[in-house]
Parts: sequence; C-alpha cells; structure tokens
Amino acid sequence: MVAPAIRVAPSAANRALNLLRTVQYTHPPNCPCHSNPNHHHHHKTPSMMNNVRRHLATPVDPSRQKEYAFEMAASSIRFGPGSTKEVGMDFTNMGAKRVCIVTDSNVAKLDAMKQAVEGLTREGIQFTIFDKVRTEPKDSSIREAIAFAKPYKPDAFLAVGGGSVIDTAKLMNLYTVFPEADFMDFVNAPLGKGLPVTKPLLPLVAVPTTAGTGSETTGTAIFDLVEKKAKTGIAHRALKPTLGICDPLNTRTMPSAVHAASGLDVLCHSLESWTAIPYNERTPRPTNPINRPAYQGANPISDIFSLEALRNTVKYLPRAVRDPDDHEAQSQMLLAATLAGVGFGNAGVHLCHGMSYPISSQNPGYKHSGYQVDHPIIPHGVSVAVTAPAVFKFTAASNPDRHLAAAEAFGIDISNVKRESAGEVLGNAIAEFLAKLGDQPRGLKDLGFKSSDIEGLVEGTIPQQRVLMLAPNLSGELEAERGELRRLLEESLDY
Amino acid sequence: MVAPAIRVAPSAANRALNLLRTVQYTHPPNCPCHSNPNHHHHHKTPSMMNNVRRHLATPVDPSRQKEYAFEMAASSIRFGPGSTKEVGMDFTNMGAKRVCIVTDSNVAKLDAMKQAVEGLTREGIQFTIFDKVRTEPKDSSIREAIAFAKPYKPDAFLAVGGGSVIDTAKLMNLYTVFPEADFMDFVNAPLGKGLPVTKPLLPLVAVPTTAGTGSETTGTAIFDLVEKKAKTGIAHRALKPTLGICDPLNTRTMPSAVHAASGLDVLCHSLESWTAIPYNERTPRPTNPINRPAYQGANPISDIFSLEALRNTVKYLPRAVRDPDDHEAQSQMLLAATLAGVGFGNAGVHLCHGMSYPISSQNPGYKHSGYQVDHPIIPHGVSVAVTAPAVFKFTAASNPDRHLAAAEAFGIDISNVKRESAGEVLGNAIAEFLAKLGDQPRGLKDLGFKSSDIEGLVEGTIPQQRVLMLAPNLSGELEAERGELRRLLEESLDY
Repeated sequence: MVAPAIRVAPSAANRALNLLRTVQYTHPPNCPCHSNPNHHHHHKTPSMMNNVRRHLATPVDPSRQKEYAFEMAASSIRFGPGSTKEVGMDFTNMGAKRVCIVTDSNVAKLDAMKQAVEGLTREGIQFTIFDKVRTEPKDSSIREAIAFAKPYKPDAFLAVGGGSVIDTAKLMNLYTVFPEADFMDFVNAPLGKGLPVTKPLLPLVAVPTTAGTGSETTGTAIFDLVEKKAKTGIAHRALKPTLGICDPLNTRTMPSAVHAASGLDVLCHSLESWTAIPYNERTPRPTNPINRPAYQGANPISDIFSLEALRNTVKYLPRAVRDPDDHEAQSQMLLAATLAGVGFGNAGVHLCHGMSYPISSQNPGYKHSGYQVDHPIIPHGVSVAVTAPAVFKFTAASNPDRHLAAAEAFGIDISNVKRESAGEVLGNAIAEFLAKLGDQPRGLKDLGFKSSDIEGLVEGTIPQQRVLMLAPNLSGELEAERGELRRLLEESLDY
Repeated sequence: MVAPAIRVAPSAANRALNLLRTVQYTHPPNCPCHSNPNHHHHHKTPSMMNNVRRHLATPVDPSRQKEYAFEMAASSIRFGPGSTKEVGMDFTNMGAKRVCIVTDSNVAKLDAMKQAVEGLTREGIQFTIFDKVRTEPKDSSIREAIAFAKPYKPDAFLAVGGGSVIDTAKLMNLYTVFPEADFMDFVNAPLGKGLPVTKPLLPLVAVPTTAGTGSETTGTAIFDLVEKKAKTGIAHRALKPTLGICDPLNTRTMPSAVHAASGLDVLCHSLESWTAIPYNERTPRPTNPINRPAYQGANPISDIFSLEALRNTVKYLPRAVRDPDDHEAQSQMLLAATLAGVGFGNAGVHLCHGMSYPISSQNPGYKHSGYQVDHPIIPHGVSVAVTAPAVFKFTAASNPDRHLAAAEAFGIDISNVKRESAGEVLGNAIAEFLAKLGDQPRGLKDLGFKSSDIEGLVEGTIPQQRVLMLAPNLSGELEAERGELRRLLEESLDY
C-alpha cells in the first residue's frame, strides 16, 4: 500500500513558519546534522529556518523536512490489586474463544498465571500455554514461539510475565496475523526492512509481573538478532497490547535485586525519554502517518509521563528495594513503570539504552548478586543505569533547564545552580542515588570491564541508530560519535 | 452476554485489606453513603473498613463493595499544525473505503473540512457528508443523524467540528453497528438502560475545531433527552474515537468569545476531575470489567492529566482570549483541552457540570456577547464556570491538599495558607481568574436568574446523578443534597 506523498503547496511553507511561532517547545536546537537519522553521518543538513525558506522557492525534499506533529498512543491500562482475575471476562467481552497464553517457566508457577488460567477456565474459553519464553529473547526463540502460535490459530493472546514475555507475545501476534511475512520484513531498519504494520493485530492482554519494562503499554518488542550480533526489535504502535492489567499483587514475588534492576530500567526510561531530542527536531517528516515512528522524540504529552515516572521512581524505588513488605512502594513502582512506558513508548530512549546492549552481551563474566541463575548476568536495568551518570552529564548542554528539572526530581535544590552546571549536578545526583540504592556496580570496572574492552563496547553501540538518533548533543558524524561514546564509556569505568 | 460474578473467597478479603495498605491515595474518605451511587439516597452504607471486615464472616453484597481498580483508556492523539491533511491516508491505512463525514453547517465552510475532504479525495475514498449536526444536540437531532448514517453503510466515520459534532458522530457509529438496538438501550441509566457496548465500533477519526470539550479523546456523548427534560448521554470506553487529530490551525477560526467559553469548559473539566471522589471510594465494585464506568472517580493517571491541563489553562487561556494572533497560546489551549479530556474522560466531572445543564436550559433570556446567534444563549463553558467559585469553596473540605494544589496552579502562594482556608482561597482565585478574563458574568444574576429561579435549578440538577455521584462533600441524602445545591446556587447569584 503506497500512499502519495503530501503535496507541498506554498501554504505548507506558511504553516511551517507558523509552526515555529506556535509550538511552544523550548528545547534549544541541537546539532542539525544529528537530528536527521537518514543523513546521520553527513554533515550538511540545513538548519530548520533554511529548510523552511527553501520551500518557498524550491521543490521540497521530504527527507530533509523536520517533523511537525507527534502521535500519542498507549494501551488501555487497568490498575488494581487482584485485577488479574478479571482477564477471563475481558476475553469474553472481546468475543475471544481461543487464546494463546504466553509465559515463561518461572512465571508459569506463580499466582499470576494461576489467576489468569482460572479466569479463562471460569469463562469456558479454550486456551493453550506457551511457557518457553527466553529471558532476553533471541530471534531464534522468537521464531520458535511464533511456530508454536501459528498452527493453534488463536483469536487472542494473553501475556503473563516480564518484558521478555510480553515482547515475545507481541511478535507471536504479529506473525500470526501476517503468516506469509518473512521474519525480517518488520524488523527495524536498517537490519530488517522496517515495513509498517498495515492490518490490526489480534487482541493482546498483557499482565506484567515485573515493574520495569513498561512493555504492557508500548508497541516495541526487543530481541537479539544473533547473526548480526545486534540487539534490535520491531516497533510499531499496532503492536501495543489492547489492555495492560497492572496488578500489584503480581510484582510481590520479585526478589529485592529484581526490584532494584527493574526499577533502574524505569529510571532510565524516564530520564532518557525526558531528555530525548524533541519530536520537531527529528527528520525526515513522514510522508504517510503510518511511518511516524513510535520513538518520535520528546513531546508535550510524553513529557508529562516521563517526569511523573521519574519523580515516583526516585521516591519509591529505594523503599521497594529495602523492604519486601512495603507494598505501597511496590505498587507505586508498578505504576511508575507503566507511566514511564507510555513516556518512552512515544518518545524513545537514547544513550543509556544504546550502550546497555553491548554491555550486557559482552559481559566479561559478572553475575549480579541476588539473581538465581547459573550463568553470568548483567541485568538489563543494571547495564542501562551504569552509564547514566556520565550520559546525563554529557547531554545536559542540549537543554540545561530540562536536566535541572530532572535534578530537582532527585531532591536537589536547583535554585542556585547555574545552567552550565546542570550536567554535573544531575550526573552526581544519579550516581548518589545508585550508591544509596545498594548492591549496584560503581561503574563498568565493577562489572569486570577493562579499558581495553571500551572499543568493543563502542562498536557494539554504533549499530543502535534507532535510539542514538534521539540522543541530544551527539555530533552525528560517525568518527566524532565514536569518540563521544568512547569518552562516555571511559567515564563510566568507575565513579 | 452475562458473565458470572467474581467469586469472593477469603483471599479476596485479604486482598481488600492489602489494598488499604498498598494503594497510596491520600484523599480522605468522604461521606461513605455518598460514595455509593446505587444507594445514593440511603444513609447506612458501612464504612470501608467495616465493609472489609464483613467479608471475613458474611457473604458479600457486591453492590456495597468499593472499587479496587481503575482503567485508563484514551484515543490515540495526533497533534500538529497542518496534520488534518493526513486524514485521508489514515483511512487508507485502516482499510476504510466508505466514510461518513459528520460536521455542522458552519464548520462545513471552514478550512478544516476542506483539508479533510481533499485528503479523502486524494486517496480515492468514497464519502458522504452529514452537515446538519445541531449545537447542543437533542435526542431528535441525534436520531436524525443516525437515520442518515445507517443506509449509507459506512465502514468508518470522520467528525470535523466541536463537541456536538464529535458526540453526534460517536452515536451515529454506535447505532450503525447496533442497527437493531432501541435508542434508549445504551442511554445512561436510570433514564435509559445503560447497556454496555459489547462489540467494537467502526473506526472514528475526530478532528476538533474548538479547544474545549476534549470529546476527541473520550467515550462520552452528551445530548438533551427532550421528553425527560434532562441532559444525559451515553458513556462507554468503546465510543472513544480511534484517533483524535488536534490541528491548531483548525481553532484559529474561533472568535475570542468562543475561545473564552470553550476554555472555561477546559478549566472546569480539569478542576472537577482533579477533585472528584477517588475511584476507590466509588461503589459498587463492578462484577464484570465491562461495567466499570468511564467516569470512575479521580485516579493516579487522570490526576496527572487534570493538573497539567489546569496549569496550562491558567497560563494560556487569558492570552488566547486577549490576542487572536497569539497562536502559541491557542495551540497550548488545544493541547490543554485534550489533556483535560483524557483526565475527565477517565475520572468524570461533578457539581459545576451537574448544575450547568439546568442553567443553560432554563436560561431566562441571556445572550452571551460575541456569539453570533439569533436566540438567547448561555454557552456551555459559561454555564459551567459560573458556579465554580462556590463549588470549590464547598468541596475543599473533602480534600484540602488537593484544593490547595489547585489554588497553587492559579499562582497563589499557598505556603502560609491553612488547610481550613483551602476552599476560600481556591474559590477566590477562580473568581478573580474569571473577572480578569473579561466579558464573563459575575454570577447567575448577570445571566438574568433571580432568587426565585433557584428552586427550578435545584430540581434540574438532582437528576444528574451520574456526575453528582462523583461530587466530594455532598451529603448523599436527597433532602440534604437539595439544601446543599440550593446554597451553592444562592452563593453563585453574584460574587
């Protein structure tokens, strides 16, 4: 389905000029070349005003036009302790009769699954259970899950578990609805074809059992593409669950170390989406709204979610980690995870997430305390947060006010802080927060990385263009960017 | 489709007790009898703790159980100047081929409609136009619109206009999908049967041309039920548009007086939803999630939207009214209207809206300046705001902190304000805001109402139970409630 490009009449130029006057968005422009992902490693993208003026005289190259709109989409969210048991009625209400339940072997034993299965049984709904979801899924494990779902011909999906489970269920849904598609058709470009999703998917209800990924609200699914040695995924609003059921009873089973790591993912979702480049600095302007990415840059609605999630995480994560009986704090962290999910699900993440993928996959042998596994593991939230002090020190120059507001969320009195010091102040606040949380590495060295590993981490980060393109203050020129990532990783060795 | 009630095992009582410990919600309990809409005029509802303790020993009467979950649903929102022209592509992307466009005779002439029609034409999509929507729709005008839509057999709807247009389009969609239904089947109980909507409706894209109702994000449609002399409506999440396209270019055509009145609707949406009773004080707990009302009381997610919308309205509405060329302020008011729509669309409104309906319909002959009509008119936003100073002075006792936070949004320094004075301070702040906005009545007397009209307004308000049940601090006993409404209306005569 190819839609014609928007015709750009002279009035479009007027509108673009009006846009400059009307959209109040105080983020100062960052390096203009960086803001164009399609021209990410060229250095000549004209500035916005030049762009607008060009339209008055010359034909428009849409790939050089900046975005002028944002789109906010989120799953419906139900929040309440005990609400898992409603899920059978939800499927009846949707008219579903044959549900594919997706979970993993650990969650399969928990009360969340018991409630879900009982709920479906009470309603007389047929179901099958796929309980082989792999934590940190690979393309091979996703393909296996899809192969399970297709012949069952479900009319709806139910995911019960953490981000890996919910992400896997999204892709089972996608390829069940597009059974003829090649797996790479929908994988994010440039690794895959990045085709848009042109049909509605089946209903998917997501019941998170961790307070971290926010996957229950987003259209994003992340996995390792093994042959390319890259963490990538599929991102489109059409993938978002129909309904997320956030039941605080389901996160009680998390050990303290999992509370901490999951919560650090929430912290970085909120910080990164709050500081991502603004949507109207992103290029190219899509010629069809279906091509507007889910990760579109910070916008006035995602901002509300991101900042609120940040404040709640700072307030409640330490309590949730310290006291396993602090159910109020746990409940608030589940809410914060979902709010952050709406924020980053529509704005995106950037440097911490971009660097976290090689940090986790190039693990020199670190095993995080409190994780009951028989192999080395750097939990996702830990690998994300370990670079955060350096990252936000670096990005602050792009928008000191926003970084000061973030520092204020950490309880810093910013009334006498100079804007030039915003990065220093926020970076220190994050480092102190991590130290006080306890059992967190004080830098990459604590994870076993040495200076000689930095180059590998840089090369593992460079392919993460989908998130790097939203990073403020990156030079956008390949060699310069390598240098910037190198410095960020070096600074993250210890603190 | 009848779903079995949730079985209440002993663990449910434990969960209810856990709820008390886990859900952080600082709203103090208001009169317990009021919080039960089904028993609104009885005076013996047990308190929450008693309710919980009862479950340990006796069978549970679900109608007396308080709510334990909330559900957040909103339309996808696209926001950007010029984004109306994308709408043709949206319908192509949805697979729609035959669209019923809904508008009114004024909007039909505006650029918003031109852009929409051109968008559909470019995509080769068939469409018909219904341009006879009545401002402040009656059941008869809604039925006429439905009769137009049904034989066309559209596969999607497009609404271009203000709240009346969007609300009418929602109901054309509903009764096209349920062609055999009696009109009263879905009308809110007790006037209608209040049946839940059990099938997905057709895609509806809403393009608002006013910054007021927020109807583009809600599942609510309001109209006059003439034979019952009541303003009522149909409210269910299933009615919410698929997509709201908020294009600030489309609100430029509003005269200043319309900016003001629409903006006062936004002001009260945000204030009322922010101060509505909390969701977990509402009874009965629904036995099936499909019966959870859209207007469910204040909850932690609606709160975020409501407070942000309030702050933005205080900041930008005076500018939007004063200067027709202040496109930034107009754009921000369109955003505030949508944010407030998400807030009240999931939390509800209460006293200002409840009293506004008889105020508008019992208009003694007032014609608001700046409205180019040949008949008396109290615009909806004006009739809503005229009681606001008295209302929030009255409701403050239910939750002084929340009312102080609202006063702070008006720029009041609350650091030395006592909690007992919260109502006084907020009421005065609202009165001053209205006075400074200009061209607003200084009370009901300015609208032509006399003391002798109060009784009629009281009797016209009493049937608005769907919103009154969310009002904090009302006694909940019919005669006492009449007295409270009488005092609120008397206080609103002049200020």
